[in-house]
Amino acid sequence: MRRVRVHPLPTAALPEAEVMLVVDVIRATSTAVMFLESGVKALWLTAGLEEARALRQNGELLAGEVGGLKPPGFDFGNSPREVALAELWDRTVIHATTNGTKAAHKAAQVAREVLLASLLNAPAAAQQAARLGSEVAILCAGKEGQMGMDDLYTAGVLAQMLLAEGFEPVGDGTQVALHLAQKPARPLLEASEAALALAREGLGEDVAFCAQLGLSERVPRLLQRRGEALIFG
Amino acid sequence: MRRVRVHPLPTAALPEAEVMLVVDVIRATSTAVMFLESGVKALWLTAGLEEARALRQNGELLAGEVGGLKPPGFDFGNSPREVALAELWDRTVIHATTNGTKAAHKAAQVAREVLLASLLNAPAAAQQAARLGSEVAILCAGKEGQMGMDDLYTAGVLAQMLLAEGFEPVGDGTQVALHLAQKPARPLLEASEAALALAREGLGEDVAFCAQLGLSERVPRLLQRRGEALIFG
Repeated sequence: MRRVRVHPLPTAALPEAEVMLVVDVIRATSTAVMFLESGVKALWLTAGLEEARALRQNGELLAGEVGGLKPPGFDFGNSPREVALAELWDRTVIHATTNGTKAAHKAAQVAREVLLASLLNAPAAAQQAARLGSEVAILCAGKEGQMGMDDLYTAGVLAQMLLAEGFEPVGDGTQVALHLAQKPARPLLEASEAALALAREGLGEDVAFCAQLGLSERVPRLLQRRGEALIFG
Repeated sequence: MRRVRVHPLPTAALPEAEVMLVVDVIRATSTAVMFLESGVKALWLTAGLEEARALRQNGELLAGEVGGLKPPGFDFGNSPREVALAELWDRTVIHATTNGTKAAHKAAQVAREVLLASLLNAPAAAQQAARLGSEVAILCAGKEGQMGMDDLYTAGVLAQMLLAEGFEPVGDGTQVALHLAQKPARPLLEASEAALALAREGLGEDVAFCAQLGLSERVPRLLQRRGEALIFG
């Protein structure tokens, strides 16, 4: 039996899964997808800006945000639109993101395979998850311990796609996400707290970008761990 | 401004609220409402069966469950249907319930007023909450740290009623609950994990009972605390 379970939040006691899709749709995992789409060969996820700076050795690019904007000395903010316009063939990016990295670390503790998912790569991410295992979990990053409607919606869209591949839904979080996924993406995402915070910074266009379904076939996959950094490619 | 916020789970860091509605709809808070409806003057919520036994001094009735069923030496299980048939005028009930009591304790730490809510008393509970304060929170008990679709649905129904009283919804949890509340009660509740577990014990009729909207005007309100017990009336 193939099963999919949505976790609305990265709680302390996550059950094991073969494959875990990590979702931080506004904006970390959307931006991560666009980094790979732009030619990046390795994406290092770190939790803090100082950690990212300390990891840079030769030629790595730094991405991150403070209050939605690019920090001093960084090459990129956390904007998938900005990344989409860049040519980054064969480069390495060190990407500082608080909630997304925290969730990815939780996933790495309990899953054999960890993938980063967003609406941009949802069809490809669901297909790859289905290829990699029969027990798939979808982990919503949320925001500082609070559930994010944007992440839960995206989890519902991914779960829907796995159902179409013959997976069975397990648990109440999965059912709630599936109900939410019946709504259209853009208004749902735009009503989330994460989107409202970005709109206040004048970054509302990023939300519209993140709401696009299936723009990319690239699915960041956890390859290794170096200290506190998780390396995706 | 009057505001309502839904908390999908009793997490560690709950913000303060003037009034908190605690929801454990299958079955603790539904049963609690029926105890008051049946004439009970004081309802003591405790976390464990042993605690409940230890609190009994003279004539109090014991309610609780082990795997859905009435424990040895107890007067009632945790069944609202069973309680609805009883005549309990002026009696005191000591009600052992794990998730519901845990959530009520969390609520008591951050709120001035704590009320127990279910679908059975939803219209009365929303009205009383609106009378008691302008910052209302709805706390879903969930099950052993997992979100319950049954509780989130009920929270959405309560939030809808508060919106009709002029309250503004705050936060993503509230929006998700409001989306869920657009569905009909009975199939939604019956699809929840809590309901499926009861159905396996042959107690599916209790879920149908809990799905009835507005059967009672009684709203259990926290009056005082005695040791680890919370006394509602």
